[in-house]
Amino acid sequence: MNDDLTVSDIQAMLDQSPFIRFAGVECLSVDNVNLQVVMKQVMRPEMERTPGSGQWHGGPIAALIDTAGDFAVVLSVKSGVPTINFRTDYLKPAFTPALIATATVRRVGKTVGVVDVDVTDDTGQLLAVGRGTYSTKAG
Amino acid sequence: MNDDLTVSDIQAMLDQSPFIRFAGVECLSVDNVNLQVVMKQVMRPEMERTPGSGQWHGGPIAALIDTAGDFAVVLSVKSGVPTINFRTDYLKPAFTPALIATATVRRVGKTVGVVDVDVTDDTGQLLAVGRGTYSTKAG
Amino acid sequence: MNDDLTVSDIQAMLDQSPFIRFAGVECLSVDNVNLQVVMKQVMRPEMERTPGSGQWHGGPIAALIDTAGDFAVVLSVKSGVPTINFRTDYLKPAFTPALIATATVRRVGKTVGVVDVDVTDDTGQLLAVGRGTYSTKAG
Amino acid sequence: MNDDLTVSDIQAMLDQSPFIRFAGVECLSVDNVNLQVVMKQVMRPEMERTPGSGQWHGGPIAALIDTAGDFAVVLSVKSGVPTINFRTDYLKPAFTPALIATATVRRVGKTVGVVDVDVTDDTGQLLAVGRGTYSTKAG
Repeated sequence: MNDDLTVSDIQAMLDQSPFIRFAGVECLSVDNVNLQVVMKQVMRPEMERTPGSGQWHGGPIAALIDTAGDFAVVLSVKSGVPTINFRTDYLKPAFTPALIATATVRRVGKTVGVVDVDVTDDTGQLLAVGRGTYSTKAG
Repeated sequence: MNDDLTVSDIQAMLDQSPFIRFAGVECLSVDNVNLQVVMKQVMRPEMERTPGSGQWHGGPIAALIDTAGDFAVVLSVKSGVPTINFRTDYLKPAFTPALIATATVRRVGKTVGVVDVDVTDDTGQLLAVGRGTYSTKAG
Repeated sequence: MNDDLTVSDIQAMLDQSPFIRFAGVECLSVDNVNLQVVMKQVMRPEMERTPGSGQWHGGPIAALIDTAGDFAVVLSVKSGVPTINFRTDYLKPAFTPALIATATVRRVGKTVGVVDVDVTDDTGQLLAVGRGTYSTKAG
Repeated sequence: MNDDLTVSDIQAMLDQSPFIRFAGVECLSVDNVNLQVVMKQVMRPEMERTPGSGQWHGGPIAALIDTAGDFAVVLSVKSGVPTINFRTDYLKPAFTPALIATATVRRVGKTVGVVDVDVTDDTGQLLAVGRGTYSTKAG
């Protein structure tokens, strides 16, 4: 029996959350071997830093990092996991119609999972990096 | 001449940002001596973790930490400052109609400012803590 | 029965570790109600940043933060706890014969404990801050 | 004129610091294009967590992360840089005679540089990860 999670499985879980659905997070791909997910988030006016600038406010970028990191651990744990903590480093102002977040598990154990998240624009230019710790204890 | 920033000054700066205005961040108080700001954010349906639960998704909590921390540094620098990085630790699930964030500068220098942010519910129970670094270089 | 840990208890635990003993960490006080420990570390030549400068290298400061944070959680858990992760922010160059670290638990739960650590010189001037997460699961 | 830094250049800078020399940090390689350094640190008795265990205390691991991250930025800036902050995540207990730290710059700008550091044993097994921010302003 294969209990790998598919893009559709992850998207369905994402869409259960009003906040994530509002943010419009789309799951682009999953890799159950390397425990990696790729997600996309398209700009909406409520997420701009200054009006009409096309620049992302940092808040939605951090939120995307948290979400993408979380679901990378979900690939291993097979159910929702609470975030313990995460760090966001903004590397460049983010003027791009869509953010792409690639979250890769660095280590998952019985207590916690640790994930790295790279956020780029749609040309692959690195805009922000995140690192999060998630609880993997059975709930 | 007194160049202290008032609650109204900060609120006006907050309201310039579409994201912060959407989030509904309200400045409750400023302390120009201790470089501390207190901000409030009221739940709206788009910020729930699961539908009808009344629980905040972590994303808006992290975004509030970033914003509150930023404006604590603004009290010193007198203009907007970019976030370099910040860390969010979630301490308890946040079931509360309103988040209160208290941001206190720990050190502000010529390059960076470091801020601690405590997030509580409206009874003072601690829900999350943040720590951020902001660029203070003249732009 | 009172199972509060005393300064002597903590010092005995500290001294079991070759690294901590080499660093010369001394427990000054414990507060079992607020889950707070205060520790002191005196400069030794191997811990200087540059020869004869009297400036602490950042490494020993970070290590002291990790240790002090750990033992604040030990006050609650009553046994050694592994560090999951921690963050160190250096606020000022540390020219002081002795570092004082005050570690205060912000939240301790069944999975993790979160601790803030302030590092000052012996006049109380803030030099660095730390924030750590420790595993509290029964081993 | 080529102002690339060599392994010898970096080693000479490392050896100027009493703490780093005591820790025995050895520069194994430098990559001036990708801004990456690899460093090695061999166990000494003062760095054990418990006597005779062969396990590294977390303090020296964190210190190595800070140092390796710092020198990755040095490849770009060509002189010593102060650490602003860094995060250490311990992934596995470290029982190994030698730690290998690979530090890679993710972004270097006029104010700060951001670096990722992976720490492995000498077989390549990942033990800890670090992420640091360093000041790049001309002193």
